[in-house]
Amino acid sequence: MARAVIILIQCRDQKGLVSKISTFWYERGFNVLDCQQHVDNGAGNFYMRLKLDLEERAWPDASTTNDFQKLADSLHLNWTVHDTGTPERVAILVSKAPHCLYDLLVRQRENELPCMIPLVISNHDDLRSVAEQFGVPYEHLPISADTKPQQESQIRKLLDTHRIGLVVLARYMQVLSSRFAGDYAGRLINIHHGFLPAFQGGNAYQRAYERGVKMIGATAHYVTADLDEGPIIEQDVERVTHEDSPKELSRIGRDIERLVLARAVKAHLERRVIISGHKTVVFSSGV
Amino acid sequence: MARAVIILIQCRDQKGLVSKISTFWYERGFNVLDCQQHVDNGAGNFYMRLKLDLEERAWPDASTTNDFQKLADSLHLNWTVHDTGTPERVAILVSKAPHCLYDLLVRQRENELPCMIPLVISNHDDLRSVAEQFGVPYEHLPISADTKPQQESQIRKLLDTHRIGLVVLARYMQVLSSRFAGDYAGRLINIHHGFLPAFQGGNAYQRAYERGVKMIGATAHYVTADLDEGPIIEQDVERVTHEDSPKELSRIGRDIERLVLARAVKAHLERRVIISGHKTVVFSSGV
Amino acid sequence: MARAVIILIQCRDQKGLVSKISTFWYERGFNVLDCQQHVDNGAGNFYMRLKLDLEERAWPDASTTNDFQKLADSLHLNWTVHDTGTPERVAILVSKAPHCLYDLLVRQRENELPCMIPLVISNHDDLRSVAEQFGVPYEHLPISADTKPQQESQIRKLLDTHRIGLVVLARYMQVLSSRFAGDYAGRLINIHHGFLPAFQGGNAYQRAYERGVKMIGATAHYVTADLDEGPIIEQDVERVTHEDSPKELSRIGRDIERLVLARAVKAHLERRVIISGHKTVVFSSGV
Amino acid sequence: MARAVIILIQCRDQKGLVSKISTFWYERGFNVLDCQQHVDNGAGNFYMRLKLDLEERAWPDASTTNDFQKLADSLHLNWTVHDTGTPERVAILVSKAPHCLYDLLVRQRENELPCMIPLVISNHDDLRSVAEQFGVPYEHLPISADTKPQQESQIRKLLDTHRIGLVVLARYMQVLSSRFAGDYAGRLINIHHGFLPAFQGGNAYQRAYERGVKMIGATAHYVTADLDEGPIIEQDVERVTHEDSPKELSRIGRDIERLVLARAVKAHLERRVIISGHKTVVFSSGV
Repeated sequence: MARAVIILIQCRDQKGLVSKISTFWYERGFNVLDCQQHVDNGAGNFYMRLKLDLEERAWPDASTTNDFQKLADSLHLNWTVHDTGTPERVAILVSKAPHCLYDLLVRQRENELPCMIPLVISNHDDLRSVAEQFGVPYEHLPISADTKPQQESQIRKLLDTHRIGLVVLARYMQVLSSRFAGDYAGRLINIHHGFLPAFQGGNAYQRAYERGVKMIGATAHYVTADLDEGPIIEQDVERVTHEDSPKELSRIGRDIERLVLARAVKAHLERRVIISGHKTVVFSSGV
Repeated sequence: MARAVIILIQCRDQKGLVSKISTFWYERGFNVLDCQQHVDNGAGNFYMRLKLDLEERAWPDASTTNDFQKLADSLHLNWTVHDTGTPERVAILVSKAPHCLYDLLVRQRENELPCMIPLVISNHDDLRSVAEQFGVPYEHLPISADTKPQQESQIRKLLDTHRIGLVVLARYMQVLSSRFAGDYAGRLINIHHGFLPAFQGGNAYQRAYERGVKMIGATAHYVTADLDEGPIIEQDVERVTHEDSPKELSRIGRDIERLVLARAVKAHLERRVIISGHKTVVFSSGV
Repeated sequence: MARAVIILIQCRDQKGLVSKISTFWYERGFNVLDCQQHVDNGAGNFYMRLKLDLEERAWPDASTTNDFQKLADSLHLNWTVHDTGTPERVAILVSKAPHCLYDLLVRQRENELPCMIPLVISNHDDLRSVAEQFGVPYEHLPISADTKPQQESQIRKLLDTHRIGLVVLARYMQVLSSRFAGDYAGRLINIHHGFLPAFQGGNAYQRAYERGVKMIGATAHYVTADLDEGPIIEQDVERVTHEDSPKELSRIGRDIERLVLARAVKAHLERRVIISGHKTVVFSSGV
Repeated sequence: MARAVIILIQCRDQKGLVSKISTFWYERGFNVLDCQQHVDNGAGNFYMRLKLDLEERAWPDASTTNDFQKLADSLHLNWTVHDTGTPERVAILVSKAPHCLYDLLVRQRENELPCMIPLVISNHDDLRSVAEQFGVPYEHLPISADTKPQQESQIRKLLDTHRIGLVVLARYMQVLSSRFAGDYAGRLINIHHGFLPAFQGGNAYQRAYERGVKMIGATAHYVTADLDEGPIIEQDVERVTHEDSPKELSRIGRDIERLVLARAVKAHLERRVIISGHKTVVFSSGV
């Protein structure tokens, strides 16, 4: 794939945004590979994803950046730019359940996820062989009621050392601090084993069984200080029946969790997600 | 279709239930058209649906009934029998939204629902023309804070007069009393415009929009004294995106509500549902 | 809803399309309510849907149209414009199955479909009461092997008289001539009771039963001279099992047909569909 | 899990089957863990899955077997018995695509599939590291137009040596001979990358793209001499749009293939599938 940059924009809706932004890049000779917009008529916000073919150019090009910043200032745009030639470095945090870890490692190796995975961290040692089977370093950081803050510091240090851009909680059964959630805002994705906002908190499948629901689901979301209240990126469900025991629900649920988390991580890495308040805009995956 | 009876059974699980029950009917020469069982291994309960070909026989036949009651006593069975030759009489309660009412009336007329619909009741007069278009009497029983108990009495009287066996709340926006729910236990089905237990209560689509969910759903359940906590019969969902306004969610939701309510009413009328505590066993629709 | 126009564009992909087209409308002071593009990188084609707020303006405004045609010529655009203030006039053709007819009539009446339905045509008299129940004129045009061309002429005459813009085959069991399909190209939608390209032709549910498939589906498509080969607008499926008889498959299928046809007709009426060869681009339904 | 046996039965439907079969086991003191029946009213066939708790008993117990065979003879039952304590030995055949192989190996290791996988066979050497990563022997048997029969002989020899009970074609891109299909009838499962009967043969995603379908699917089926015509065990689909390139369809399809194949293999291994002509009865997965 040729090198490209993706620009994500959000601002208040106003006349002429598409014209002004697309013309800026057209006049400088960039080829627009993809251009998607969304206007939230209720809130009056505008969102845009632009994918530009860099061809032979370098980025950031100080003068182009400078000019676009001027336009952005005049239109009050919030914008970020992402070079597709520099894959994100992702850390996966797990506890004892291996299914999401396996799934992400296989997809990364099969080039379904544009990222590197230089690090798996766990509060248990159980999944060491899974990570090592894929040649990924595994850091075992045990945790107890007393050592919670220290363990989180160790996690931070490892994330810094490995220059991690995205942290994925792939069935990590510990609650991270609000401060951690704040510092990694928009770069911390969790998979919840329930169809949020139903079944927040633990034991979601047991509670689904007890409630007698006819479908179960899973939810991938950005983590915020409010547990299970972060912006939802992706959800899915499967039909279940009265015949399914809690154990069977867990098994069915694992397949939903795998898929939902993989789709959410892929959308994030392809820079198709804009966070807006406690919601997300997820652009389609055409290009 | 030939005449048949459906027997629904629930009891504590014990050895030999299938043998004893199936042999009882076999020895009396009945042809078993369908036989489904379910054992809830967690709770230790047994559920069965038997469909017997009546051929030329009459039912209830006092001597057969008497004999089966003896078997039932010895095994501590709870059982009910339903003659498929006597279609249930169904009343539909509505407020202003016509989509579920239309759907049920069309399906009944097209022989998808084995029932008669002799009565539509509403607290508004808006849907009179819909009912009358299908030749169904429409009773307008207005309600105010002061007249709530009286209106409910009027409903009861109408249900009695029309010998109603099943009451369907097809987007009826009033809460019935606990006493009413108790008296019509197992014969009162509601459609809720949310994927329970998420979004209990009112304004489910607006709240789904605000939460930024990626799927919306609907739930058909038996009504109990605890609002939105009754045994779930059927649920379904549709995928939505950030592009869908609350109005669009409502529109998508209407299609889910229609289907989910129709499936639940059909399952009930075909005697495929056994209520067990606050859950249901829903047998499949083969025969 | 305020008056708006929708412009559908297709052309060869080239640099600057979004910039040039959006700037044209921005400079003339139009507010862009929605703007979606799609580039088919394989075929090298560009597709766009623009929705413009007319506010107090009249359309067509000769000078604006003229100017835009100049731009269109220079970029080799194919474009059409649709005034949302003039609802399409739709004719429904049916045979004996009422489910899709009921569904479209109910949705139109409930304002889910931006159209008028001034005419139902059938080769049988069976569904007269359904149409008349909704106050829609019903034309019974019987057909025999000998009278096929004459009957089609009668249909054409009725469509002309009623100034019909879209013809919907809602389980119309006759094959229209290639010439008819050609003359109504892009304005003739059929619902097929199979998941195309599987089960082309008749008896799709019986054949699905015999093949032992685990899901059945339906397909809405534009009609072309090649039967069941026209551009697909929408498809959906439902899970079935070995327990489902052909009759049960038909019943389940009716619900799929209803939904799929309604979604396709809605997409067409909202001018969200561009036909490109024997495929379609279906823009999302945000605005 | 306690030891249990599963008995699969098929025969012509007749009065008293459930009574006679269930009574046979009840009188011998067996606890029935699960009992599911299906009557195909069209064809007049009866199917049954019985799961019996062995507790301390041994199986086969010559006298019980003998007695049941007498009953089977009198009722003209076809029956097979499967000891859940002896996991099936499964060989996986692959070519170059690793996604289904990874998925089956992970699920087997995570105890989602009651089997051993002692052997992976491929006509290419590409996936050796995947098998070896899981400690599974990998046999590379190259194939050319000239060596096709010899290669198949080598496969047979390996299957014999490893006492393989089930062969899974996990995107194996070679056609096996009719004789092979015949000899392994009912023990040979293939995953097809299309929603059969649509898109039989190769390049299914490319052809789905060209046809412009709005959903793509995959099908797991038993292999018979007629390519892509074998009894279907499981199918599933995902929604796609005009934005999805053939490459994107392949990626989405891989997730469907993974799930569909895993579900089919699981159903087979749990002895929930009865083949009947060119169709299957798939019992539910309760117990």
